[in-house]
Amino acid sequence: MKFLTIANAGVQHLSPYQAGKPIEELERELGISNIIKLASNENPFGFPESAKQGIREALDDLTRYPDANGFYFKQAVAKKFGLGSEQITLGNGSNDLLELIFQTFVSEKDEVIFSQYTFIVAPLAAQARNAKARVIPALDYGHDLNGFLAAVNDKTKLIYIANPNNPTGTFLTHQQIEQFLTQVPSNVLVVLDEAYTEFTAASERVNSFELLQRYPNLVVCRTLSKAYGLAGLRIGYAVSNEEIAGLFNRVRQPFNCNSLALAAGIAVMNDDSFIQKVAENNRQGVELLERFFADKGLAYIPSKGNFVMLDLGQPALPIYEALLRKGVIVRPVAGYGLPNHLRISIGLPEENQRFLTALSEVLGL
Amino acid sequence: MKFLTIANAGVQHLSPYQAGKPIEELERELGISNIIKLASNENPFGFPESAKQGIREALDDLTRYPDANGFYFKQAVAKKFGLGSEQITLGNGSNDLLELIFQTFVSEKDEVIFSQYTFIVAPLAAQARNAKARVIPALDYGHDLNGFLAAVNDKTKLIYIANPNNPTGTFLTHQQIEQFLTQVPSNVLVVLDEAYTEFTAASERVNSFELLQRYPNLVVCRTLSKAYGLAGLRIGYAVSNEEIAGLFNRVRQPFNCNSLALAAGIAVMNDDSFIQKVAENNRQGVELLERFFADKGLAYIPSKGNFVMLDLGQPALPIYEALLRKGVIVRPVAGYGLPNHLRISIGLPEENQRFLTALSEVLGL
Repeated sequence: MKFLTIANAGVQHLSPYQAGKPIEELERELGISNIIKLASNENPFGFPESAKQGIREALDDLTRYPDANGFYFKQAVAKKFGLGSEQITLGNGSNDLLELIFQTFVSEKDEVIFSQYTFIVAPLAAQARNAKARVIPALDYGHDLNGFLAAVNDKTKLIYIANPNNPTGTFLTHQQIEQFLTQVPSNVLVVLDEAYTEFTAASERVNSFELLQRYPNLVVCRTLSKAYGLAGLRIGYAVSNEEIAGLFNRVRQPFNCNSLALAAGIAVMNDDSFIQKVAENNRQGVELLERFFADKGLAYIPSKGNFVMLDLGQPALPIYEALLRKGVIVRPVAGYGLPNHLRISIGLPEENQRFLTALSEVLGL
Repeated sequence: MKFLTIANAGVQHLSPYQAGKPIEELERELGISNIIKLASNENPFGFPESAKQGIREALDDLTRYPDANGFYFKQAVAKKFGLGSEQITLGNGSNDLLELIFQTFVSEKDEVIFSQYTFIVAPLAAQARNAKARVIPALDYGHDLNGFLAAVNDKTKLIYIANPNNPTGTFLTHQQIEQFLTQVPSNVLVVLDEAYTEFTAASERVNSFELLQRYPNLVVCRTLSKAYGLAGLRIGYAVSNEEIAGLFNRVRQPFNCNSLALAAGIAVMNDDSFIQKVAENNRQGVELLERFFADKGLAYIPSKGNFVMLDLGQPALPIYEALLRKGVIVRPVAGYGLPNHLRISIGLPEENQRFLTALSEVLGL
């Protein structure tokens, strides 16, 4: 018996998500230490101390099931952004939110629209359900919204937009998003994945929650994995109109976020000073890398995320491997159809510098 | 726009899972304190101290993504049970494992077989995918395996068996399970949910991992939520043959278990003395309740789990509510089609006594 043959159609050609290489794995493989990882857009400042305090206070009560409704976490999110708790859906990170959105709305009868070079979990979620993916060629590595609109038809169920986009770092303004929303049919969901929104300058940030009031087909995803530095805890949330949130909650695993993730989430939700420090360090890091690349004549994609995509103009894998041997883990993106690029997450100033030194040595700059 | 009309067919009639009432909620509603909760089959002894230690050691590294492969946790499970790591699939609790199994193998073209009165997540997972559920009438509140076999046809993809069964506590022996497996076609998956297996006496426990060697269509689910007392952390695992595990891992969210759940899981995997204490207290608690019910002429379902089902012979909801007002939360199971029953989780000796006293007052025994 080959069990592959009885798996769901969409699963038969599905490849598992490739995570960034863990530091411990590289240590085991190469027997080296003093490794830095700039591969998974993790936060070089760690996470707010308030999170740890929230966890410590929740540590005695791990035997009870988590609060299935995330009552206090939703309250904290709702208060921070002026939302109703009923608009919020708990997610075990953005990945879980995307799976949940697809599980609620997308079947093999449907078409889903997204861009070339976008966060791979959306394409994987579509493929797992054997839905038809309409992949719109990227425009300067970003979303071609006119191309999206041209692809809408009677079967379109959902349009996925990561903004800023991962892995390319491209960005759409509030005006561009709203202009787009006015042209999308009201029975087509627009999923705006804002995992990296906190890294954009406040002055240019998309006010997506305000858009929700006029576009009930909009679903906004946020995560605490990036700017809040809590990737290890798995917590994020979707914001939508109440009816859509109610449907998500029919499908959502009731205990998708564990008790410690909820406790930390409550604690950090109002830690704005941490976010400001993180965003400022990130801005400086992006500038440092981009200026270096420009000075050295290396191509790159200007980024609004906490990472920069370097275009090596040659297969990136050997350079990735040479960097590994110097103890610097960055992210190859051949899986995204970008075999000549590497994605470098912004680190602390000394980590960024160490990457630049290693890169200079590898490339003989 | 009614978004319900564009949701997936299976979602349109789906009801969300009803969790047990949290203590805090009852406190908010009734303004009373000193509440005991015997509603969610949680562990009255809490969890092993080793779990807390594991978490404390992992607390500084929440910014990194969890190990997507759960390398060390799988090693601990594999070592404990003499399994290969490649046979193990990580789950965010059993609920996540069931969703993952269905997402990998079950679509609306398939039929799924399970018993009346079984753990509701399996029926919900089938319904969410619009698969046809063949619900086999219970035999003495348990699984009618001959009825299961009679329902197998060309469309059957999966048979779900919870053993001990939740919420009824009924139990199938190793011999009964193996006898059944010999008759199930090899292209039909048998999912054996052993969430409560640690509460059965070692002498009568099903050796399900040994069965895996002869029945590659068998998938065993285990959880750390019950005997290990870690319901709040969300960690469980499936054990299957390697090919099936590989398929699950195509579909599994790579970071479905968070870093602290993995750390605690590693720490507790060999804490056998804790499990023994828990199982012994549970055995005494089940005996106490069953003897009391028998003495008072109340009907009940003999249980191998960490709970007992009381048959009140009259609508249970008013009695559930009267117990709430006395600060005792138990579980109504009308959602399982058992409106006259209440499920009472075994607590500490003093909690069991308090329940019996409250019940006596409410029923005028």
